[in-house]
Amino acid sequence: MSCIAATPAPPYYAVIFTSLRSDDLTGYVAMSAHLTALAAQQPGYLGMESLDDAHTSITVSYWQSLDAISAWKRNLEHHEAQRLGREQWYRSYKIRICRVERDYAVGVSM
Amino acid sequence: MSCIAATPAPPYYAVIFTSLRSDDLTGYVAMSAHLTALAAQQPGYLGMESLDDAHTSITVSYWQSLDAISAWKRNLEHHEAQRLGREQWYRSYKIRICRVERDYAVGVSM
Repeated sequence: MSCIAATPAPPYYAVIFTSLRSDDLTGYVAMSAHLTALAAQQPGYLGMESLDDAHTSITVSYWQSLDAISAWKRNLEHHEAQRLGREQWYRSYKIRICRVERDYAVGVSM
Repeated sequence: MSCIAATPAPPYYAVIFTSLRSDDLTGYVAMSAHLTALAAQQPGYLGMESLDDAHTSITVSYWQSLDAISAWKRNLEHHEAQRLGREQWYRSYKIRICRVERDYAVGVSM
């Protein structure tokens, strides 16, 4: 993770995507990089924080509204990546859609 | 991260703690393990997912209510850890308190 996402004052929305990967990661790294860049171009995108280790990942993306999250979920390239994820890359995953009620920070430009 | 947290049906609450560490990590690993165990004993605790790399961490803890989160924030040992975190271990961090509105999973026992 390169930095803490510079999100605006709440309320806004977070998508917490937690995953355990399978052993077949063909195409995974390239698609992951592509999707990260593509997400950043979507209307209502506010930022992303992501870390992974050998087998698991946590990716939190931040959005202005539930509508922005729904539109990103329906994006055609993202939709294809979701299919590959379910069928090939992930052993299991969980997605949580959250409303950020409040936040506070230390040492971060708000 | 060992597994995806087995949280109940929404609504419930998430605390997303994103941090960039300093170079002085004296006592950090022991306190981190202690706090993880201590959090799991708190009323309203539902689970935790955490990953870190050399300099950054994402820890998401799940709770039944905002009251449970407030009580954990005020816990004396946690309070001391927060002070050490601000003064010593973290270059910067951000904490987001979220209401999980909905979730879905693939390959996870719900």
